[in-house]
Amino acid sequence: VSASPRAPMGEFDLIAKWFTKPARRSPLGVGDDCALLAPRAGQQLAVSTDLLVEGRHFLSTVPADLLGHKSLAVNLSDLAACGAEPLAFTLSLAMPRVDSEFLEGFSSGLWTLADRFHVDLVGGDTTAGPLTIGITVFGEVPKGAALLRGGAQVGDDLWVSGTLGDARLALEAFRGRVSLSEAGFAQARRAMEQPQPRVELGLALRGLAHSAIDLSDGLLGDLGHVLARSRVGAVVDEALLPRSALLASQSSLMQRQCLLTGGDDYELLFSAAPQDAQRVLQAGQSCLTTVTRIGRVVADAGLIVRDAAGQALDLHGQRAFDHFAS
Amino acid sequence: VSASPRAPMGEFDLIAKWFTKPARRSPLGVGDDCALLAPRAGQQLAVSTDLLVEGRHFLSTVPADLLGHKSLAVNLSDLAACGAEPLAFTLSLAMPRVDSEFLEGFSSGLWTLADRFHVDLVGGDTTAGPLTIGITVFGEVPKGAALLRGGAQVGDDLWVSGTLGDARLALEAFRGRVSLSEAGFAQARRAMEQPQPRVELGLALRGLAHSAIDLSDGLLGDLGHVLARSRVGAVVDEALLPRSALLASQSSLMQRQCLLTGGDDYELLFSAAPQDAQRVLQAGQSCLTTVTRIGRVVADAGLIVRDAAGQALDLHGQRAFDHFAS
Repeated sequence: VSASPRAPMGEFDLIAKWFTKPARRSPLGVGDDCALLAPRAGQQLAVSTDLLVEGRHFLSTVPADLLGHKSLAVNLSDLAACGAEPLAFTLSLAMPRVDSEFLEGFSSGLWTLADRFHVDLVGGDTTAGPLTIGITVFGEVPKGAALLRGGAQVGDDLWVSGTLGDARLALEAFRGRVSLSEAGFAQARRAMEQPQPRVELGLALRGLAHSAIDLSDGLLGDLGHVLARSRVGAVVDEALLPRSALLASQSSLMQRQCLLTGGDDYELLFSAAPQDAQRVLQAGQSCLTTVTRIGRVVADAGLIVRDAAGQALDLHGQRAFDHFAS
Repeated sequence: VSASPRAPMGEFDLIAKWFTKPARRSPLGVGDDCALLAPRAGQQLAVSTDLLVEGRHFLSTVPADLLGHKSLAVNLSDLAACGAEPLAFTLSLAMPRVDSEFLEGFSSGLWTLADRFHVDLVGGDTTAGPLTIGITVFGEVPKGAALLRGGAQVGDDLWVSGTLGDARLALEAFRGRVSLSEAGFAQARRAMEQPQPRVELGLALRGLAHSAIDLSDGLLGDLGHVLARSRVGAVVDEALLPRSALLASQSSLMQRQCLLTGGDDYELLFSAAPQDAQRVLQAGQSCLTTVTRIGRVVADAGLIVRDAAGQALDLHGQRAFDHFAS
């Protein structure tokens, strides 16, 4: 958007100052009524959108640059789950007032991540309002190659990337329900505030994973989506769930809560044929991302999580993180 | 998104109930980490995004169905300005609470307009928060055919569609600054709450208009964008600006304010070669939309608006509507 001569410190200048860089991979970026994207021949465009609201998705205490990072990261994570290559994004921003310090930090964190994955910011909208961040992200995926929730097959291994639960542990620490050392709190907070989208892993899993989803609402809820869409069930071994040494040092109840219903993990949960286990491990190694087998897809509907003794947990009362729950 | 067995009245059911319809023109719609779009060969994807915040972009008194209509309409208007054919959209919705009555009305207004233009709702996000509506819209346009802000040429006629200023007149009536008859208020309010995106006109102007923009922030500001991007100036005749009989019955000062700086018009402002004037008029007729010549593009930078006596107005103090201005 070009600067308006009639609103010298207004909306338009603000966009121009912080959020305009030349589009490198898109025919037309910021500054017109529409941006233009040109997917390559044979490619489909993967699209995902997320809305982040202060107090719901982030705390008011989060540094602006980390918020910029996370806002884009959670969207790139959706592309990763589909095996799509990031291409571009749009940004909508409502702010109580034009705050240069916030905008400098926010845009800095945003651009650092955007540049790392070579994604163009191609459009957006800014307005006054309660702090709210809306991002829509675009990626390319060859026709028929997208990883979907509905592809899990009976007999598949279930895998997750990285470790689970540290982001939830940070939230529990913020809420005063758990006490962490300074270093431990810093680690947990990093997991919550600086999730790393598993873009490279998503690409490496094309043609290998049968189904995939990114873990944003907690393992139970997100695995539930995969099972419902795939019309299958699953058995998961709690002891196999990958966790940091920090989380492993907490009470078993806290570990369980963080691992199963934590949310905000932004790791990939995916399924693949057992005979491809070695290829899955190699895919993880190729992008320096740990991948861990946590269970198996079964024909009987429903989800069973077994404890270390092989007993099925009572999952009653466990639930996915619900942004409308109090 | 499939219903989660663990959040029976939560976020996921809400999406499923109100916002899921099969995608007809997109390979994959709502319910996975990403939607998939497949532009046809030779077509580029036009993308635009808008964020609407209660109290800024709409009043809390607006009926939910009209809000659903307007939220999509203002985005389709951006596609219209680019000459793009609407294809799909995503919806992000923050609401203070899950309100079935609101959702029924909102989705009803949204779907009526979506169905009229055959656009798929392919994805979205819902969360608790202050009422905020984010829409990103996608359209197709043949490579090189998009109408842009930067294409105005010296000597071009300047045109607008429809009439200007009624939406602003409604706002002035809401603010108590002008008194309208019941019928007059209803008409003005309809202009504010039910803008009609000029999609057909945008398509008819492909290959004919040299530049285009949709009027959302007021004629002065939006024309300013076109002039700045095109590096040209313009002379506009105030008397030529098309207005309703309702607006024409107001004081000349009120008319001027509504016509020049009104905002929320969602009409198209475009330029075309003088020798194509007849074709422009035919394009308007072909989609039952009035088009009116309001001035001319000139080489000297800057914008001159002449009153009926041919005197240049003093535009100092006039400004585009700024969503951060108090």
